[in-house]
Amino acid sequence: MLSITRREHFSAAHRLFIPEYSEEENLMVFGKCSNPNWHGHNYILYITIKGEADPDTGLIIHLRHVSQLIQDKILKKVDHKNLNLEVDFLQGKVPTSENVAIGIWNELEKDILRLGAQLHCIRLEQSENNIVEYFGNSI
Amino acid sequence: MLSITRREHFSAAHRLFIPEYSEEENLMVFGKCSNPNWHGHNYILYITIKGEADPDTGLIIHLRHVSQLIQDKILKKVDHKNLNLEVDFLQGKVPTSENVAIGIWNELEKDILRLGAQLHCIRLEQSENNIVEYFGNSI
Amino acid sequence: MLSITRREHFSAAHRLFIPEYSEEENLMVFGKCSNPNWHGHNYILYITIKGEADPDTGLIIHLRHVSQLIQDKILKKVDHKNLNLEVDFLQGKVPTSENVAIGIWNELEKDILRLGAQLHCIRLEQSENNIVEYFGNSI
Amino acid sequence: MLSITRREHFSAAHRLFIPEYSEEENLMVFGKCSNPNWHGHNYILYITIKGEADPDTGLIIHLRHVSQLIQDKILKKVDHKNLNLEVDFLQGKVPTSENVAIGIWNELEKDILRLGAQLHCIRLEQSENNIVEYFGNSI
Amino acid sequence: MLSITRREHFSAAHRLFIPEYSEEENLMVFGKCSNPNWHGHNYILYITIKGEADPDTGLIIHLRHVSQLIQDKILKKVDHKNLNLEVDFLQGKVPTSENVAIGIWNELEKDILRLGAQLHCIRLEQSENNIVEYFGNSI
Amino acid sequence: MLSITRREHFSAAHRLFIPEYSEEENLMVFGKCSNPNWHGHNYILYITIKGEADPDTGLIIHLRHVSQLIQDKILKKVDHKNLNLEVDFLQGKVPTSENVAIGIWNELEKDILRLGAQLHCIRLEQSENNIVEYFGNSI
Repeated sequence: MLSITRREHFSAAHRLFIPEYSEEENLMVFGKCSNPNWHGHNYILYITIKGEADPDTGLIIHLRHVSQLIQDKILKKVDHKNLNLEVDFLQGKVPTSENVAIGIWNELEKDILRLGAQLHCIRLEQSENNIVEYFGNSI
Repeated sequence: MLSITRREHFSAAHRLFIPEYSEEENLMVFGKCSNPNWHGHNYILYITIKGEADPDTGLIIHLRHVSQLIQDKILKKVDHKNLNLEVDFLQGKVPTSENVAIGIWNELEKDILRLGAQLHCIRLEQSENNIVEYFGNSI
Repeated sequence: MLSITRREHFSAAHRLFIPEYSEEENLMVFGKCSNPNWHGHNYILYITIKGEADPDTGLIIHLRHVSQLIQDKILKKVDHKNLNLEVDFLQGKVPTSENVAIGIWNELEKDILRLGAQLHCIRLEQSENNIVEYFGNSI
Repeated sequence: MLSITRREHFSAAHRLFIPEYSEEENLMVFGKCSNPNWHGHNYILYITIKGEADPDTGLIIHLRHVSQLIQDKILKKVDHKNLNLEVDFLQGKVPTSENVAIGIWNELEKDILRLGAQLHCIRLEQSENNIVEYFGNSI
Repeated sequence: MLSITRREHFSAAHRLFIPEYSEEENLMVFGKCSNPNWHGHNYILYITIKGEADPDTGLIIHLRHVSQLIQDKILKKVDHKNLNLEVDFLQGKVPTSENVAIGIWNELEKDILRLGAQLHCIRLEQSENNIVEYFGNSI
Repeated sequence: MLSITRREHFSAAHRLFIPEYSEEENLMVFGKCSNPNWHGHNYILYITIKGEADPDTGLIIHLRHVSQLIQDKILKKVDHKNLNLEVDFLQGKVPTSENVAIGIWNELEKDILRLGAQLHCIRLEQSENNIVEYFGNSI
């Protein structure tokens, strides 16, 4: 198995809460992350792509194409945005690290295939102490 | 000169804007940081304190006391909060890194003196690419 | 596969040696790590837990519960302690990174199950150049 | 599964290009990495080795032996060198991260076996934003 | 004193040597850094600017303007380039970390003044173990 | 002002306590750092040296000479050692970060002068949250 990983980052606001719950219930479930006035993070995003190295170029994929794709499909939607209010692919979901990582996977999976390789892992670091990894259904 | 530095971190939402400006003017001045729906950061905070090492203990100051002070005076006000709406010592100010660092200095300066040492620097990293340092009027 | 990782750290003293060996033999096997006067490290510990995201909350597990568990079962036993002399779950073992990681896995595995998820990996960084990962028998 | 990872680093010059291509074609395929005057990187290399912990010593392998091996077989060939011109195990290959990682794997695999363990992964970070991992044919 | 720092990075090839010296003499003075076939680094560059925070905006300077300036005056000249052969402001100098930092200072000093603030420090990390800081004649 | 910094690291055991105090008094003053069974850290050490760049070589000092000096005068005394029991230049002192940094300064100051430059700062990171800097009497 051979893979290449691109690291990106974005800064966003969010709030963890379930609209049907009272503020007290949300506080009980999500703690200080349920603050109604929002809080935010610098997210670090690792996109790992697997495939064969092209025998001529020695590359799995052109990282420039991957960068452009991440810019267009993910970063311009989430960077300096509110994850609860402004991100189409997170509508109706609590923006936990888990749901954000799964949402990013779903946005990118087919486009990576079109570029001739295969998405392997979305790793999302919400802080240095809180890291989520999603491997789709490939493992 | 001898100093000791304590590293802390907090996550917060903010928005850079001047209420008297239109949204277009704020966008021109502050770029994407003026997003009305907020965004946020993981801030890394370094508090540097200078003084003499006590000849018996070899310590400038008891870091436990510093930690407790930062917890009470700063972190419980800013962590998982909205810097524009919820922080008393930032009221009426645009929460740029510069203003947040100056505000934290002003909150801590006298208490550090009371603990027998002297505040030397507040360093605030809003992201790995954007760092502010404030030395009060001591330099 | 979906996982969430919590990062913790602790500082401890240890010494690598086999009591039945002479000091010369221990030096030959463990090098400078066998120093009879001890040495120590800042250990960084990553606990990775896998599971499904709850469809309501979007969480695999409540990290607060994980944090509390790690605090009670691991950190208060190893932080600022001597790994050879003071840690019940390491008694009779050479406290190599390998054995410490396996010991931590054994302490946590059942409790994570009780919290409704599954321990996936214990990653222990003894220094930035020396990293152990243990996946139990799950892989 | 239990593994131990050793981190090393080296600094090298390289250029991505295919000799049969014109400069324009190389520029189209490899972008600024095809600069005929070379450029370079600080590479970070992680060598992950898997195995059982020895019941007596608690070690998978003696890291000193691994260090010596990496020094002799890899670092003295690539550190402060030109990856296109001076590295025997990269002759005739475009020195992409992918090819360098595969080359390092091939150099080390048998020697690790001789030391009584098994090479699991070569991870090569060409920059903080560009990371390759190679697992041989073991996964 | 109040300052803001912007972090950037670039990758370049270089060689430390004095043309009038023989290869043996260069090797004696510069060690493996004198390799005639070049080597290279990922350089991390910190540009620190001091000034007053604008009472309205709370900013010392607009970092976007600083970014654009660094891009135009520095990065497009040094990133993925050969520091000995291709950089106008390093012509005739040995491209040590010291000389590169001084060269970058000289390129930026006046433009920062024109933007209404003052260059305070150029910090250049050639590797994690080798860091140069230049403060011009301001200290 | 121009400076160059060399980064090194070492791992050591220590205990903070005053022999004349009871265990309870030491616990009150030094907290868990007074554990009689020792604990330890991975220390990161930055040695900053200031001077002029040689007009021919572009170097303040030959870092190889600095490295050798640090190895001989500091690292072989403290790495994998007990700072209370085994380090000559810390005898009779509580091995706080402050005292270790001052001790290292005193060991190196004259030798750096002999190498033709001037010691500027000893920075010692006992953990990522606890950093001491000592500038001698030069500031």
